[in-house]
Amino acid sequence: MAGANAFYAQSGGVTAVINATACAVIETARKHGGSIGKVLAGRNGIIGALTEELIDTSLEPAGIIAGLRHTPGGAFGSCRYKLGAIEDNQREYRRLIEVFAAHDIRYFFYNGGGDSQDTANKVTQLGSRLGYPMVCIGIPKTVDNDLPFTDSCPGFGSVAKYVAVSTREAALDVQSMCSTSTKVFILEVMGRHAGWIAAASALAQEKRGDPPHLIVFPEVPFDEAALLRKVKKTVEARGYCVIVVSEGARYADGVFLADAGSKDAFGHTQLGGVAPALANIVKAGLGYKYHWAVADYLQRSARHVASANDAEQAYAMGRAAVEFALAGKNAVMPTVVRTSDEPYRWKIGEAKLSRVANVERKMPKSFLSADGFGITAKARRYLAPLIAGEDYPPYRNGLPCYVTLKNELVAKKLEPFPL
Amino acid sequence: MAGANAFYAQSGGVTAVINATACAVIETARKHGGSIGKVLAGRNGIIGALTEELIDTSLEPAGIIAGLRHTPGGAFGSCRYKLGAIEDNQREYRRLIEVFAAHDIRYFFYNGGGDSQDTANKVTQLGSRLGYPMVCIGIPKTVDNDLPFTDSCPGFGSVAKYVAVSTREAALDVQSMCSTSTKVFILEVMGRHAGWIAAASALAQEKRGDPPHLIVFPEVPFDEAALLRKVKKTVEARGYCVIVVSEGARYADGVFLADAGSKDAFGHTQLGGVAPALANIVKAGLGYKYHWAVADYLQRSARHVASANDAEQAYAMGRAAVEFALAGKNAVMPTVVRTSDEPYRWKIGEAKLSRVANVERKMPKSFLSADGFGITAKARRYLAPLIAGEDYPPYRNGLPCYVTLKNELVAKKLEPFPL
Repeated sequence: MAGANAFYAQSGGVTAVINATACAVIETARKHGGSIGKVLAGRNGIIGALTEELIDTSLEPAGIIAGLRHTPGGAFGSCRYKLGAIEDNQREYRRLIEVFAAHDIRYFFYNGGGDSQDTANKVTQLGSRLGYPMVCIGIPKTVDNDLPFTDSCPGFGSVAKYVAVSTREAALDVQSMCSTSTKVFILEVMGRHAGWIAAASALAQEKRGDPPHLIVFPEVPFDEAALLRKVKKTVEARGYCVIVVSEGARYADGVFLADAGSKDAFGHTQLGGVAPALANIVKAGLGYKYHWAVADYLQRSARHVASANDAEQAYAMGRAAVEFALAGKNAVMPTVVRTSDEPYRWKIGEAKLSRVANVERKMPKSFLSADGFGITAKARRYLAPLIAGEDYPPYRNGLPCYVTLKNELVAKKLEPFPL
Repeated sequence: MAGANAFYAQSGGVTAVINATACAVIETARKHGGSIGKVLAGRNGIIGALTEELIDTSLEPAGIIAGLRHTPGGAFGSCRYKLGAIEDNQREYRRLIEVFAAHDIRYFFYNGGGDSQDTANKVTQLGSRLGYPMVCIGIPKTVDNDLPFTDSCPGFGSVAKYVAVSTREAALDVQSMCSTSTKVFILEVMGRHAGWIAAASALAQEKRGDPPHLIVFPEVPFDEAALLRKVKKTVEARGYCVIVVSEGARYADGVFLADAGSKDAFGHTQLGGVAPALANIVKAGLGYKYHWAVADYLQRSARHVASANDAEQAYAMGRAAVEFALAGKNAVMPTVVRTSDEPYRWKIGEAKLSRVANVERKMPKSFLSADGFGITAKARRYLAPLIAGEDYPPYRNGLPCYVTLKNELVAKKLEPFPL
């Protein structure tokens, strides 16, 4: 006889490898079919649990589930929807327990960042209080790499690789043309308030002086004069300058570069991106011809150039989550524990959800170079293994074969729940 | 005894595969060492011939030259420098012949777009007139795919593949999140006045209704009302909408979208890009949450996701150029002649430089769908084989191993020539 069902949901911004985690959860649960019944996935994340829109993954054939391992995006839909404090949102938390009880769900796997780990932790507490004990396991995911306790977050390594590869490639282009064309190239990358992704661009360097020549971090208050000096020096020495800027870059007073002068005289919001804002600063200050790129979603969905280590860890976290649940653990999150930089070795660890929740891990100061525009050898040692290895998806007709699921919902048993 | 030397130069915007052409020119010339002496490459393109900055490629070992085949950018430097009409620029054309004579250069291989083919054609004419006969062979290159006579231009297939892959990937991301986040995603791509690159994004579609849902072509006067209607309909039907817009998109009066409203009330030039301009139009008209990306140089340097057919043709064009020269041909350019769509088959053809020069090939009207926001089956048949096949570069430490040349110059023999 099959055990109770499991609920799995994807939360927050999706990544190139979050579906590899989904794949692992489903494949591992299927292997333990005696202990776990069906894996029901939330349609659009936790919203699916509230609205009782539960995707029956048992209807998907093994080949399709296997294909999730190399398919970017969130196969069941994700959402930006944060359940609030349990005291103020009893209605929502109770509804979750009702839906879980109605569908015999006793396992809750929540795949997301800090907010999601917080939610998972509250669900297990409330379940106990209401006499419906749940096993709640968080599974780390975030391109921003800002979760505590885990050495790295699945999703980050692949964005890091995309950014390092793209920086190396675009720099070759700019270098080729700089005698008569573009002198300054600016690439804007993600990372919110943490500079992990921007830092990874430095892996494109093979020797001192290689591009990127400047990285603008959110952790370092933006110093326009210092930036212009270094850009000028770089162009004079090398003929061109490549800058990688984090979307979260800001002035000492906290104003984001992207927001500076964000209204025109008519009150219209100006368009834009940090990269064009920085390009304007360079143009105004030094007059160099520039180009800029904003990778936006391209970087976090670029499964075609995923890091093999990242894809492997994404899978390993999903498998560990199910194994943790079956081993009787609760309110924990599997983590990556690094045991060696070179050769890179890691093992599975665990962290209590109560401690992970809502803690943002910034880059340590020791990772930033003295002038604030680069990274240290220590940062390089940390970052290098995370982008290592290629893990290409299969291709057909020149394009990656990404799978599409049926995503059929199980029949509803409860009254509708207005969000 | 070795024959006369050859001059090779890269011209205009570089591509992911222009170095594969350089590799072929050098490798083929080395095979025919009895007929061709050294291949001297222009430092920064044709400027190197004027300034007598000639890179001695014979100093580069075979392994490094072989590595050019998978290295993006222009290994010898390229330039945007157009020699004018021969009547008004006698001084420059005569200088070219002087430099070529001083270094026993009798072969001129010019790797570029329409302008470059024009230059190559003039050089051969002038050489004859001055009693210094030269063999001049043009070699096609342009990501914009706008050269006539050749079925496709080396460089285009790889950008096309990058754009199709990126569109498919980013669309999966947007689709995952659209219930609570971004509804409209806009990707800006290159292509100048021709919509070839934008059109290639449609290859991401597997079935009717797949993203990209709208493509904004430079060939179709921009109709804001029609665009907003279709975006609205798409979001209502599918929950999200992916738009690919060409940098050259413009209104019926010829004004580029990127230029519209380009000054604020203080006379400052607004920061650019078509994607943010279009995002603003969508936001103002429909209020949807949007994201946008500008791939810029990332797309044309993305050797990591090059098309195998494109890389092969880039090499084949370089080899054919040298073989043409040795066969006694002159003032011609090798071309790709398609003999079958499916299975894709092609052979080498040739076109007279005098006919190629300064002709821009736009997309045929028959490639555009009735509503102007998509492509036809005919366009799909044309485009599909150009992105086929993967041709991954080797990787080390998680990054592609791209080669760097010594680029040592031969000793100058002439007086300096002020540009």
